[in-house]
Amino acid sequence: MIITVKPSITSADFKELSHFIAQFDESVNSLNFLGQNVLFLPKNTLSKEQVNAIETHSAVEKVVFPPQAYQLCSKEWRNEPTSFSIGNTQVGPNQLSIIAGPCAVESEEQIFTVAKKLAELNVEFIRGGAYKPRTSPYSFQGLETEGLKLIRKAADAYGLKVVTEVVDRSVLDDVAQYADVLQIGARNMQNFFLLKELGRIDKPIFLKRGMSAKIHEWLAAAEYIIANGNPRIILCERGIRTFDDSLRNTLDVAAIPLIKDLSHLPIFADPSHGTGNRKYIEPMAMAAVAAGADGIMVEVHPNPDLALSDGDQSIELRSLEKLLNSIRNLRN
Amino acid sequence: MIITVKPSITSADFKELSHFIAQFDESVNSLNFLGQNVLFLPKNTLSKEQVNAIETHSAVEKVVFPPQAYQLCSKEWRNEPTSFSIGNTQVGPNQLSIIAGPCAVESEEQIFTVAKKLAELNVEFIRGGAYKPRTSPYSFQGLETEGLKLIRKAADAYGLKVVTEVVDRSVLDDVAQYADVLQIGARNMQNFFLLKELGRIDKPIFLKRGMSAKIHEWLAAAEYIIANGNPRIILCERGIRTFDDSLRNTLDVAAIPLIKDLSHLPIFADPSHGTGNRKYIEPMAMAAVAAGADGIMVEVHPNPDLALSDGDQSIELRSLEKLLNSIRNLRN
Amino acid sequence: MIITVKPSITSADFKELSHFIAQFDESVNSLNFLGQNVLFLPKNTLSKEQVNAIETHSAVEKVVFPPQAYQLCSKEWRNEPTSFSIGNTQVGPNQLSIIAGPCAVESEEQIFTVAKKLAELNVEFIRGGAYKPRTSPYSFQGLETEGLKLIRKAADAYGLKVVTEVVDRSVLDDVAQYADVLQIGARNMQNFFLLKELGRIDKPIFLKRGMSAKIHEWLAAAEYIIANGNPRIILCERGIRTFDDSLRNTLDVAAIPLIKDLSHLPIFADPSHGTGNRKYIEPMAMAAVAAGADGIMVEVHPNPDLALSDGDQSIELRSLEKLLNSIRNLRN
Amino acid sequence: MIITVKPSITSADFKELSHFIAQFDESVNSLNFLGQNVLFLPKNTLSKEQVNAIETHSAVEKVVFPPQAYQLCSKEWRNEPTSFSIGNTQVGPNQLSIIAGPCAVESEEQIFTVAKKLAELNVEFIRGGAYKPRTSPYSFQGLETEGLKLIRKAADAYGLKVVTEVVDRSVLDDVAQYADVLQIGARNMQNFFLLKELGRIDKPIFLKRGMSAKIHEWLAAAEYIIANGNPRIILCERGIRTFDDSLRNTLDVAAIPLIKDLSHLPIFADPSHGTGNRKYIEPMAMAAVAAGADGIMVEVHPNPDLALSDGDQSIELRSLEKLLNSIRNLRN
Repeated sequence: MIITVKPSITSADFKELSHFIAQFDESVNSLNFLGQNVLFLPKNTLSKEQVNAIETHSAVEKVVFPPQAYQLCSKEWRNEPTSFSIGNTQVGPNQLSIIAGPCAVESEEQIFTVAKKLAELNVEFIRGGAYKPRTSPYSFQGLETEGLKLIRKAADAYGLKVVTEVVDRSVLDDVAQYADVLQIGARNMQNFFLLKELGRIDKPIFLKRGMSAKIHEWLAAAEYIIANGNPRIILCERGIRTFDDSLRNTLDVAAIPLIKDLSHLPIFADPSHGTGNRKYIEPMAMAAVAAGADGIMVEVHPNPDLALSDGDQSIELRSLEKLLNSIRNLRN
Repeated sequence: MIITVKPSITSADFKELSHFIAQFDESVNSLNFLGQNVLFLPKNTLSKEQVNAIETHSAVEKVVFPPQAYQLCSKEWRNEPTSFSIGNTQVGPNQLSIIAGPCAVESEEQIFTVAKKLAELNVEFIRGGAYKPRTSPYSFQGLETEGLKLIRKAADAYGLKVVTEVVDRSVLDDVAQYADVLQIGARNMQNFFLLKELGRIDKPIFLKRGMSAKIHEWLAAAEYIIANGNPRIILCERGIRTFDDSLRNTLDVAAIPLIKDLSHLPIFADPSHGTGNRKYIEPMAMAAVAAGADGIMVEVHPNPDLALSDGDQSIELRSLEKLLNSIRNLRN
Repeated sequence: MIITVKPSITSADFKELSHFIAQFDESVNSLNFLGQNVLFLPKNTLSKEQVNAIETHSAVEKVVFPPQAYQLCSKEWRNEPTSFSIGNTQVGPNQLSIIAGPCAVESEEQIFTVAKKLAELNVEFIRGGAYKPRTSPYSFQGLETEGLKLIRKAADAYGLKVVTEVVDRSVLDDVAQYADVLQIGARNMQNFFLLKELGRIDKPIFLKRGMSAKIHEWLAAAEYIIANGNPRIILCERGIRTFDDSLRNTLDVAAIPLIKDLSHLPIFADPSHGTGNRKYIEPMAMAAVAAGADGIMVEVHPNPDLALSDGDQSIELRSLEKLLNSIRNLRN
Repeated sequence: MIITVKPSITSADFKELSHFIAQFDESVNSLNFLGQNVLFLPKNTLSKEQVNAIETHSAVEKVVFPPQAYQLCSKEWRNEPTSFSIGNTQVGPNQLSIIAGPCAVESEEQIFTVAKKLAELNVEFIRGGAYKPRTSPYSFQGLETEGLKLIRKAADAYGLKVVTEVVDRSVLDDVAQYADVLQIGARNMQNFFLLKELGRIDKPIFLKRGMSAKIHEWLAAAEYIIANGNPRIILCERGIRTFDDSLRNTLDVAAIPLIKDLSHLPIFADPSHGTGNRKYIEPMAMAAVAAGADGIMVEVHPNPDLALSDGDQSIELRSLEKLLNSIRNLRN
């Protein structure tokens, strides 16, 4: 249950309203969602009379009852698509944000080469993992803090924003120090302790869908972050695991319009993980944009065949220009 | 193993070559694939020397060894995309064919109303089931022959081609008499007896992907039809069954570029079955076209809420115009 | 909606009751289900008053409203598990029926060798495909009528019952002439034309689950057969298709207790197709029996490594004895 | 690559051997696996000559090359099933360990009631979550430290071992203080930071399979723990996510013999999560035991209908006795 207040009310009124509701249910919470003050209840515990009393309270604009597990993510509460700034860049509808970069930061030369090219192509965000979640304990696990420093340096040199993954709460502060956007990978989508902690961070979160997550579970994961105080979330469809083994994953393109129908949050797509094969990245990026994606994340590498991880799904730098032209034309 | 002959050779030469190969493997088969004469072997049984003898034969252009289960469908054999005519219409690359119509033919009024609108919108193909495969024995099973007559009449009145489903070999002649294109539904994709029989029919086949069919199984199903003599096949991605239950199926958009990479056959998409929900048909049609689909099948109904089957995934006639404008613009 | 009549009523009473109900809904159907007379309506169209009139009719024992798509399969209608005879053998609870034999009939010597061993081990049913549904058009397609004659001859020589697959309506009469039990394979589970025709056959049907069929779809497929007049159905779980590719299929063992909870029909399991790997056949046969399976189908071959199809999932004849001892001990 | 040393060698010899190998590859690691000293290389980097030099070294018993991602888990290295003690209890082959208890610790009365019953039934392990991973941020999240204290107290009062979940590295020390066995839930199976940390803990780990984890990914997750120093791992199959929605998950019973074939680690099954429905817990526990499971985890609750989480899949205390009798009889 969410209670939206009138824009005009004072903070004293807001406090008073909060106390008014707390007499019915003490667990009432407040949130400032990108400038909009709301109160919400974790559970729908109120009687019809109590709801009525709230609805008719002079400070209240409306009371809504979205699906409870993702009420703050829902369109029922916030009908207009959410848009927010990251530095001098805007994310949301009417944008087509691009996040590009290698799977992992491997060396200063590698990340600077990529950053330079991205700047030339007017890409806003550079990605690159410093802590890598790898299936095998014996695979390359990332350069860790050293990698973070390198990507930050490269980004600063070329005026880019850094998107990089937080793999555990214990490295959150380290990553947050260097990144502009914190990525949560598919395997951590339901790492609820980490999600709660992200609520307390003042950086946008790039929340990838778990590889077998249902749509409502994904939105509930986003809800953990918002309910704990952080409204700036970008969802990213990155392929689900199905019986089909022709490609690494099945990019669930329909999740894009579905999320747009259920939620106000921006939704991106990652055709690199979504296919696992660079041959299909461009058509699937096109498909995602045509279906309404607000942005694309794509893996690029100066020399994909020598990449320390995920080379198969990385495109070459020169292919990125063609890809960007295609999707930007499509968008227009 | 496929042997392509030189365009210049006579039919006597072709016969001689066939006998030449038959001395190595009696199971050699010949096929005229849209004007191109080929010989093919069901199994790769020949020795290196025998292959060499064939490759150096004066009538032979080239010998290729595509994946055996779908060799005649493969790009290894036929690199250029296949295109063919259906009456005065062309299917293949550089087209964006539209097949629209109700799930089932329900009445003369219904099917004529649809046909009239399709003609106005320059849609070439009308669809409508006369024999309906239904999960429950107690659901509406179609108007059968009466339905076939109605859709033929409506199509003729408005200059459209008819696409309708063959559900069993026993109704094949009945359906072939009225249809221009024979649809094979997802549940029949591996009805091998029916597939073989379709090889002997001189009508294009619209072969939907089975709901849990892998890509190579789908191409092997098409191979049954081609190897038995019918080269005119259109593949149609219609959604696969996955753990995700937000929508009826998961439209596997990546199957479109994947098929284009593996096969020369035209590939369509059906966003109606692919989503099961009319709200998502337009974005998913857009996605399919952006990913390279050669055509779209979509369910329309004069009054979806009263449809005897699949109303949820049918759009209204007036929505069709908007949809067509969107995808035709995207294509250009 | 199903109307069970009192055991004592005459056929004149039954006819009268049928007319009585037909005045409310003309689509009322009658069925003799293994000696039990019932009337059923395809749709729940009646008013409360009409239902009441039927319930209080002197010939009526009870009126039930099971899930409509599989009402005749349901426990709501028929609470006791169904059991029936096939020649001198009984299928149902308190039995542990064994069906064994090669994937395909390959030669007289092969099928006689198998039959002899089965008779020694007190196995009641021999299986062996004569018409084989194969993914590739170039794979061995079975010996057809010749195969049927061979398996019948071998079965007669050793006092066995024949279970073999019907792949198309056009071969139904041919197969029915030689078989004691007609198998419907996973790919044909929703071949509705074939299912309807099976309703008119007086032979038990062995209905395998489709590889991506939900439980209610499987029961609805059985309903097609029963509603068309054939009550003797055996369901067989044979593995579903999932993301897991360690084995050919995922044997859904839980389908066994689930079917027993929803339906009165006997349920078997096929650990050969369920795993695709002979190493796991015995533990999975054990699991199926422990979960309550009424029978097991298993592929055996005198020389699995030379089998023309599915050799990987066939056990040797000498392993069959060990397997049977294990599962028969478990059952006791 | 794993190098097993002769049982007779001294620690000086072992050190010498380690240095000998390090000259070829510095990343060589040593491990004491339940009394057995081994050396292993993360990557197979050595030349044929180098391998030969190691194989013929006087301290070396054998060199094996199992699948690299789970070499320490593999049967290729350690053919006999692993067995180990937890206090006065043994886990491994020839045991049938039982872990029972509520989904979550809810109150002192609840957990003591359960513990008392478990002791009466000779169950060795009590389970109960103190930190609960919940899909929705608004669901009951567990009693946290208070819950740990309660389950410890109840276990001590009745001579039981405690199995409880670690949901994040930050609570690891807290949980390890109270638990005898640390459970890693399905959502954390690929939380690699946590897995590495578990390698340094001297408590057995109960590692549940991720809901869409392939077998080799699951073993690679176990490898993280072993390679970091902790050899005492119990794997637990708890159901995978498939298209089938009749039950909460599909218990992949075949994973049990498959794991036994690939790995020496003990494997348990959890029919509560595996089905999500208490009606099917007993038959699926039976199936798991028949397939070779070394233990069963089952949720019980004094009053399942009032449980704060997962009540649907918890059985009543009185049903537990029947279940245990059934599976213990089956085992004998």
